[in-house]
Amino acid sequence: MKKTDVAIVGGSAAGLTAALTARRHYPNKKILLVRKEKLVPIPCGIPYIFGTVGSPDKNLMPDTPLQKNNVDFMIDEVVEIDREKRSLKTEGGEEIVYDKLVVATGSLPMVPPVPGFDKENVFPVFKDVERLSVMQQKMNTSKKVVVIGGGFIGVEMSDEMNKSGDLEVTICELLPHCLQLAFDPEICEEAEKLLAERGVKILSNQKVISVEGNKKATGVKLSDGKVLEADMVVVGIGTVANVSLAEKAGLRMGPTGSIWVDRTLRTSDENIFACGDCAEKFSFFGGKPSKLKLASIACSEARIAGANLFGAQRESVGTIGVFSSAIGDHSFAVAGMSESFAKQQGYDVIIGTAEGPNRHPGGMPGTANQKVKLIFEKRTKVLIGSQMAGDWAVGELINVASACIQHKMTIDDIACFQMGTHPALTASPVVYQFVNAAESALLAMS
Amino acid sequence: MKKTDVAIVGGSAAGLTAALTARRHYPNKKILLVRKEKLVPIPCGIPYIFGTVGSPDKNLMPDTPLQKNNVDFMIDEVVEIDREKRSLKTEGGEEIVYDKLVVATGSLPMVPPVPGFDKENVFPVFKDVERLSVMQQKMNTSKKVVVIGGGFIGVEMSDEMNKSGDLEVTICELLPHCLQLAFDPEICEEAEKLLAERGVKILSNQKVISVEGNKKATGVKLSDGKVLEADMVVVGIGTVANVSLAEKAGLRMGPTGSIWVDRTLRTSDENIFACGDCAEKFSFFGGKPSKLKLASIACSEARIAGANLFGAQRESVGTIGVFSSAIGDHSFAVAGMSESFAKQQGYDVIIGTAEGPNRHPGGMPGTANQKVKLIFEKRTKVLIGSQMAGDWAVGELINVASACIQHKMTIDDIACFQMGTHPALTASPVVYQFVNAAESALLAMS
Repeated sequence: MKKTDVAIVGGSAAGLTAALTARRHYPNKKILLVRKEKLVPIPCGIPYIFGTVGSPDKNLMPDTPLQKNNVDFMIDEVVEIDREKRSLKTEGGEEIVYDKLVVATGSLPMVPPVPGFDKENVFPVFKDVERLSVMQQKMNTSKKVVVIGGGFIGVEMSDEMNKSGDLEVTICELLPHCLQLAFDPEICEEAEKLLAERGVKILSNQKVISVEGNKKATGVKLSDGKVLEADMVVVGIGTVANVSLAEKAGLRMGPTGSIWVDRTLRTSDENIFACGDCAEKFSFFGGKPSKLKLASIACSEARIAGANLFGAQRESVGTIGVFSSAIGDHSFAVAGMSESFAKQQGYDVIIGTAEGPNRHPGGMPGTANQKVKLIFEKRTKVLIGSQMAGDWAVGELINVASACIQHKMTIDDIACFQMGTHPALTASPVVYQFVNAAESALLAMS
Repeated sequence: MKKTDVAIVGGSAAGLTAALTARRHYPNKKILLVRKEKLVPIPCGIPYIFGTVGSPDKNLMPDTPLQKNNVDFMIDEVVEIDREKRSLKTEGGEEIVYDKLVVATGSLPMVPPVPGFDKENVFPVFKDVERLSVMQQKMNTSKKVVVIGGGFIGVEMSDEMNKSGDLEVTICELLPHCLQLAFDPEICEEAEKLLAERGVKILSNQKVISVEGNKKATGVKLSDGKVLEADMVVVGIGTVANVSLAEKAGLRMGPTGSIWVDRTLRTSDENIFACGDCAEKFSFFGGKPSKLKLASIACSEARIAGANLFGAQRESVGTIGVFSSAIGDHSFAVAGMSESFAKQQGYDVIIGTAEGPNRHPGGMPGTANQKVKLIFEKRTKVLIGSQMAGDWAVGELINVASACIQHKMTIDDIACFQMGTHPALTASPVVYQFVNAAESALLAMS
């Protein structure tokens, strides 16, 4: 039997960050992280295994931060939480007695009950090095890949697989556009155009009826009766919280089926916290349940949970939802609600947009077009969302939007925003799209 | 005689932005911009003329935004403001009657009363295409250049001139470090090391006594008696507000010798506004007079002045001071107060730092080290400054810091900040330096 002050179950983004945060805030506590994976893939890096990075073993979360920060860890699977005894039982027969527990068991790929999804060569994207290796080997001998789902994972996987060799990659998306849950149509269309130019085929408005073949997948049958040939099928249609351990322990579940937590990330058991993909989330906008699952959200939550273990210090303000993606030299990013989503949620919105070069003068290297769209709530003029397309710079510019959303900055606040600019790094201060989009929203109001 | 609702004197960043802002806010007003330059250089782009961009005519502010936005403009020099008649007289003999006036006459390079500064081949950096062309021609035939002043302009000019050909470039800086008014020593040293590696010589703690030579400069004499040979001397030691027109008109001047304005950017004459380098500024921190002059500040002020012409709508919160620079692939950025400056100002500070790769996994193209330093006021834990070094991404990441400073975010706010991350664009959410620097500040408090 082991004894620890803090036990953490799960070693991906949430578990690791919770451990490091706990260490910072509680320098004298004994902290033990238990994870079932020997090697942990960097979750956001998974698509890049198939092209840019080259293999699963080049996309691993390092163990050095745990070692350097005096966090013990063991590779074993926790199979039971005994809440009364405050102890964990592992697959390997170990018992671990804890004072505080953090559940960070993450998520599993969603696999809908479609006939044939259990065939060989159908690959839901598991965060598992061995499965990813098998998948990569299969890719190397495939000619035709069908990717089911045109969200971020599907789009990034498709682009990387497409650029990695002589493969025909086709995305099947149920909705009218790829990335449609994050972006408004104009940005989706820009991304789709880029993907198409790079050689990825996109079939939207397509429901998958079945995966064809005997033991092995040979094709994907669509609702219009068409069958797409495939040596390999990738399933990237979303994830579901991995809550079996928590459910078995009788922890309360939330409205989306994830582990219920309060704003301090504490579960229904006062000695157990949960964070990351397995934890229930609420939206920053109106407090509704949110199904967003992102490594960045997981880390923010872990920094709250880790700090609160022995006394509440931090509270979640709800999930804003900030993410970015890249297709070649083009990047796309979103923070908060899209225009479409905000309208669906009943918001009366004012839209501002601005577009122009991302450098000054235009002769500076890397000059490209940058688009910024801002979504404001009409009555209060408060920023509730932003969408961006441009070069790599939008990867951090979207975080400016996130800060402004979190602080409920208004159209006028943003119009007077004090940004730093530089010829080689940003748009000119006259053109600066983030600010001018706010000015253009004022025009839209009048 | 011309009549206009709004007259704007000056056509650089502040004048242009004030015109465009006035147009947005007052669609039916007649707006006339008067500037003395036929061609206006992009101010921040000036150093890049001498290397990357190649010539002054590739670094011009376009007139198309004025034309597209129905702003009249004329090339002429305003020589007098008759406040009683609300009219301007120009060099060309024109009289312009205005209802509201914006003075955006900018700044002039500071030229200290050092013997020999009036010699041929001594070049203060004027924002003037002709002078810049002469300067560039001289550079093309020079072997040895001495740059007096190691601030942003001096550093950027030196690096660009150095990379443009077979030139020996030496910076003479009065203070112990280049860039010392913006950065703390550790960042200055990093920049100096880079400059040295690229071939720029730096002499710090050096007071210039005189420029040697007869009619033409041949060298720069330092306080230790040493004389540096030079075919060409560049003077980049700062700028002074260009206020002669405003002074002659009897407008009140502020404590730093710039045009006094209230927080709405209105001068002592209720029908006259001033913005940009010619306007007096106060610091966001404590409201003290601020001598910072940046195109980005000018544009923020112009967006306030332009909106307020016919009714106050916006107020300045004071100058935060956000700027960035690049030396090769390395970038440096600052927002708010440095640690040294804050301490000089009597602040009790807490410092947080974090450092790590700017991509995830490290195999992603462009992986480099990124450093973030955060400066917090100890008692309130409010962010008052940030310094960064890394790749291009710090050009926008510093604007995240600016938003957080403006909204007085605390250590805990930033530790829980919801950033978007992506393998190709940012650090991992576990490593994200901006957030981890806040966490490290907490350690420093305990």
